[in-house]
Amino acid sequence: MRFSKRTEDVIDSFIMKLISVSKEEGMISFATGLPDKRLFDTKGIARAAASVFEDIDHARDMLQYGTIKGVLPLREKIAARCRKEMNVNVSEENIFMINGSQECFDLIGKMFIDKGDNMIVDDPGYLGALQSFSLYGPNFTGIRMNADGPDTLQLMNALKKDPKLYYSIPNHQNPSGISYSPDRRKEVAEIMSSSECIMVEDDAYGELGYEGRAGPPVRSMTDNVILTGSFSKVISPGMRVGWMIVPDEMEDMTMKCVESSSLHANTFSQHVMNSFLEQNDLDAYLRRQRKEYKRKCGLMLDLLDDTLPKEIEWNTPNGGMFIWMKLAEGRDAMRLFDSALKKKLVVMPGRPFHINGGMNTIRLNFATAGDEEIKEGVKRLASAYGGLF
Amino acid sequence: MRFSKRTEDVIDSFIMKLISVSKEEGMISFATGLPDKRLFDTKGIARAAASVFEDIDHARDMLQYGTIKGVLPLREKIAARCRKEMNVNVSEENIFMINGSQECFDLIGKMFIDKGDNMIVDDPGYLGALQSFSLYGPNFTGIRMNADGPDTLQLMNALKKDPKLYYSIPNHQNPSGISYSPDRRKEVAEIMSSSECIMVEDDAYGELGYEGRAGPPVRSMTDNVILTGSFSKVISPGMRVGWMIVPDEMEDMTMKCVESSSLHANTFSQHVMNSFLEQNDLDAYLRRQRKEYKRKCGLMLDLLDDTLPKEIEWNTPNGGMFIWMKLAEGRDAMRLFDSALKKKLVVMPGRPFHINGGMNTIRLNFATAGDEEIKEGVKRLASAYGGLF
Repeated sequence: MRFSKRTEDVIDSFIMKLISVSKEEGMISFATGLPDKRLFDTKGIARAAASVFEDIDHARDMLQYGTIKGVLPLREKIAARCRKEMNVNVSEENIFMINGSQECFDLIGKMFIDKGDNMIVDDPGYLGALQSFSLYGPNFTGIRMNADGPDTLQLMNALKKDPKLYYSIPNHQNPSGISYSPDRRKEVAEIMSSSECIMVEDDAYGELGYEGRAGPPVRSMTDNVILTGSFSKVISPGMRVGWMIVPDEMEDMTMKCVESSSLHANTFSQHVMNSFLEQNDLDAYLRRQRKEYKRKCGLMLDLLDDTLPKEIEWNTPNGGMFIWMKLAEGRDAMRLFDSALKKKLVVMPGRPFHINGGMNTIRLNFATAGDEEIKEGVKRLASAYGGLF
Repeated sequence: MRFSKRTEDVIDSFIMKLISVSKEEGMISFATGLPDKRLFDTKGIARAAASVFEDIDHARDMLQYGTIKGVLPLREKIAARCRKEMNVNVSEENIFMINGSQECFDLIGKMFIDKGDNMIVDDPGYLGALQSFSLYGPNFTGIRMNADGPDTLQLMNALKKDPKLYYSIPNHQNPSGISYSPDRRKEVAEIMSSSECIMVEDDAYGELGYEGRAGPPVRSMTDNVILTGSFSKVISPGMRVGWMIVPDEMEDMTMKCVESSSLHANTFSQHVMNSFLEQNDLDAYLRRQRKEYKRKCGLMLDLLDDTLPKEIEWNTPNGGMFIWMKLAEGRDAMRLFDSALKKKLVVMPGRPFHINGGMNTIRLNFATAGDEEIKEGVKRLASAYGGLF
């Protein structure tokens, strides 16, 4: 097979492989980014899916080809929420519905990155996005994530290399769980507003702050940002309903590239999502989701406290789905990954998320597993660690 | 905006623009590739959409992230149909579910085309696919479509330039309506089997032959083919359920590129489609679709016979959705497009489908419009043509 040169640049993601491994009999997984499927409102989505067929003219139009930007009432709802909850001044005209965030990253890479272009990313950063961008051959520069957000000195230095894009997750970052502090948000917005580099602000976990939003998006303070969002983490990933909010000057090119790449996103899913939002109180729904994730996070934290030795450190997340763990400096977390796998527990090694270092890190997802699995899984983790180093 | 160099290569498609224009008040459209929305089985799809929620465990898994290749029972059904109806010897392992054919073309371009690579296409060829491939910067070589399929002498000559891909639609081609003859299928298969060039065989209209399949796919005679299919033309385009069948040696790279570009296709739509196929007799369903398209095609042909002057020629389709029209040599069909638009009829000029020539051609879709619109639309077309040249 004579594949294109760009395929040589794709980095391996592990993500889908780990999803496969996680499905093996008796396996417990803390490895993936899967939300808790017990929290999906199957009845509510079923009701929404029934209602979109009630009017035959509506059903026919929904099943027909649609427009490039996607379903208008859904885009209006997202725009309204952006204005009200996030202080982001956008209209539905800036919003493109896309088959999940991953396709947003592919489109953005396609639109901006030529092989060898510089691009800034969080270090550690979200592996799925790095994989998506990697197909277009950028040179990644990693910016260290401090406890309050990106190291802005490193960011300013990296901007001197004239990068096209800066990809970052300001809320409950995957994998580190870190959220930008208010000061860091302002500082990043100021830095970006005087740069030609466009920030790709991934807000996948923005609605999953246990005490509400961690802070306003950088996009609320500067226009030089593509803001991506998704219903995957809070409503359903299988429906693949994501979106991106693009600066006005990008609108025409985005039209062209979405048309060229997919014609338009799935209109059936979008209409079902739109009806779900009409028939339910999203804020009340999100409060239930956040409460349950907070509870499960607390459960895992308590168990880790009880069973793991003091030389291992981890954070206390205030949102999202992940606990970020650090073994003592110099220890190889891949050995813990291997040892845990033998005990039928899958964890996610942190190294692949990093541009530099990260050998001693591990990401644990507390969202996917049920309570009993969390209990048993932490036992397996402790047992896998015991005597390893 | 500092877009990537590849964006400079994207050709304009008109398709979505024409869909927008077609929605204007009082406009009749023969321009797009939209199926007849009156033929969508809204009740059957509603029933399928209800049934996927009946078992809560099934519903939860359906709404969760899925696997890269897509929903297994649906892939099994497609594989079984390929073996039974098309003599294509594939297993579900060769099948990747994709969000519509357009995304297949984007993936294939991404996997194979480096800027400047040669690529062979039908001339005229399907514009949406040409647009999709164009983002990756190939040099297109057009192969003239004769009445019985591609000019194989031209094809053999074009293969001397060592092209990576050959994109073609052997059944009821868009836009020309031409199907390969049995001899031409064999000949193309022989030519491809001794070439390193991979054929991309687009079977979007294969199920829409009025008297059944026009012939076996080239893929049934040689393995050196990527076969793409879709439910868009016969069940629903808004659900974006397409697929591609790849040679064994492409499987790993396709896994990587699908994951990188979208994680996986919409599992909700796929499950609804799978239930629809379980609950309905697809062959009986397709017979009704074909019969109605044949009737509407006949209606438009009769009206054209009655109202248009003899110097205009057109084909008699035996499948698909399009009548392909040729004005007298040297006449510019864009003038007829403009004149018709003033009378509130949208037709599709043939020029953009061509690598060479085609100035005098026009594509008419008889599927989208209702009977009364077809009657009124042909009147407008005749009136727009009158006195124009």
